[in-house]
Amino acid sequence: MGVIVVTGIPGVGKTTVMQKAAEGMDIKFVTFGTVMIEIAKKLGWANDRDEMRKLPIEKQRELQIKTAEEVAKMGNVIVDTHCTIKTPQGYMPGLPEWVITKLKPKTIVIVEADPEEIYNRRQKDKTRKRDPDSIEEIAEHQQINRAIAMAYAALTGATVKIVQNHDNALDEAVKQAEPVLKGLYEE
Amino acid sequence: MGVIVVTGIPGVGKTTVMQKAAEGMDIKFVTFGTVMIEIAKKLGWANDRDEMRKLPIEKQRELQIKTAEEVAKMGNVIVDTHCTIKTPQGYMPGLPEWVITKLKPKTIVIVEADPEEIYNRRQKDKTRKRDPDSIEEIAEHQQINRAIAMAYAALTGATVKIVQNHDNALDEAVKQAEPVLKGLYEE
Amino acid sequence: MGVIVVTGIPGVGKTTVMQKAAEGMDIKFVTFGTVMIEIAKKLGWANDRDEMRKLPIEKQRELQIKTAEEVAKMGNVIVDTHCTIKTPQGYMPGLPEWVITKLKPKTIVIVEADPEEIYNRRQKDKTRKRDPDSIEEIAEHQQINRAIAMAYAALTGATVKIVQNHDNALDEAVKQAEPVLKGLYEE
Repeated sequence: MGVIVVTGIPGVGKTTVMQKAAEGMDIKFVTFGTVMIEIAKKLGWANDRDEMRKLPIEKQRELQIKTAEEVAKMGNVIVDTHCTIKTPQGYMPGLPEWVITKLKPKTIVIVEADPEEIYNRRQKDKTRKRDPDSIEEIAEHQQINRAIAMAYAALTGATVKIVQNHDNALDEAVKQAEPVLKGLYEE
Repeated sequence: MGVIVVTGIPGVGKTTVMQKAAEGMDIKFVTFGTVMIEIAKKLGWANDRDEMRKLPIEKQRELQIKTAEEVAKMGNVIVDTHCTIKTPQGYMPGLPEWVITKLKPKTIVIVEADPEEIYNRRQKDKTRKRDPDSIEEIAEHQQINRAIAMAYAALTGATVKIVQNHDNALDEAVKQAEPVLKGLYEE
Repeated sequence: MGVIVVTGIPGVGKTTVMQKAAEGMDIKFVTFGTVMIEIAKKLGWANDRDEMRKLPIEKQRELQIKTAEEVAKMGNVIVDTHCTIKTPQGYMPGLPEWVITKLKPKTIVIVEADPEEIYNRRQKDKTRKRDPDSIEEIAEHQQINRAIAMAYAALTGATVKIVQNHDNALDEAVKQAEPVLKGLYEE
């Protein structure tokens, strides 16, 4: 029983991989940000994401902690979130110490693809506004995410599983993710 | 309001970039090591850097903590320091846990350049004795600094901004750094 | 006086390098896993590694902490262990926060070699079953280990020394490791 965190930069297809890998298994799927906004609403602190972002930093941290505690009680659960979010002020950690130590994940999955593949997928996807990152910037973001994932692992003992989701190779990606999900039923 | 940490290996030009980016703004500039020696003097623990380095490790840690606390109270401030310092015993963290969690920076800036550029800048600079690192060693040091910066970010929630300071492109570097400084006046 | 942690992926030759570097010096050599199983036996919790791995996670963590505390009291000691262990569930941290902060190493040594060299050494070594990792996977494992070593450094202040153990260049590797061992006798 436990929490699996799934991460990956926009365009990498993390949700597709993990949902397919979990097909037929008794595992919940939640998005960290969605649980957080629900808690904010329940507390009357914010009605939507925009209001939530404008809360004082201390309130935001309190919300993050409450969210992590809530998710940690969900049993077998996959939490969709980010290692880092790219902002004009730099890479912002998605799971800082006060979150990751409450979340206590068993495994942090990083779904990756070749930077060129991600670049092309973002180009094709007209339905959402993506960052116009260059191939080099995409490579940098993936490298940064690996580094911080290892810091999260050092803080919690979580394993870090890198899953390659190459073009036309979803089955191979799912196969790589499977031992992580089976790991939930061990011990 | 807050603390911005600026880092970068010798020869990268971090001070030039950040001073130019902060021109005309109401932001203090301090060097971590200088604040530390001033505190050591005031306490009568050491009169110069050499004496400070010879203090028992516990005293040095106490000094680091006092320095971080002092800087954290300075308001809008840019602190010049190092992610790691290269020593014969290996890469020494400049901002270990007991420092970074007291400093609570909003952003950690890493000023970088291509390893070849840094190599050539160090060659030209006759005024100071630099490490005779090879291009590969310079690349390694920059990689190591990115990794530890992400650990600092995980511990504090700080964003990590990578600023490229290429030859003859100071304006572009300054432009990359600007959102970080403007971030001090947000929220 | 202090603890040196020596790490490196299978096939890199970390034990050879460190034993040669410590020749003639008054330094103990222990393997983290061996000390741990001895403590488990003494407590009557497990008789061998297999039984130890089947203990509830909380018991395993308690054992890790007891081991770290025991090693930290050994004086000048080199501890052979892993930055991460590659498992089907991903890279598992060998020195998570509750271990590394008890171990308080002075230096973490990472013995590395070119991924091709490690690949070939593993091929030649018929006496032990090695992971059939590709050259790319070996490169990834070494990159991941550098990243987590920097997180360990951030948590403890330990220096991180990278030692290259190339083919037919043991003497050069030993030379790189020497300042770390001499560092034990300083201060």
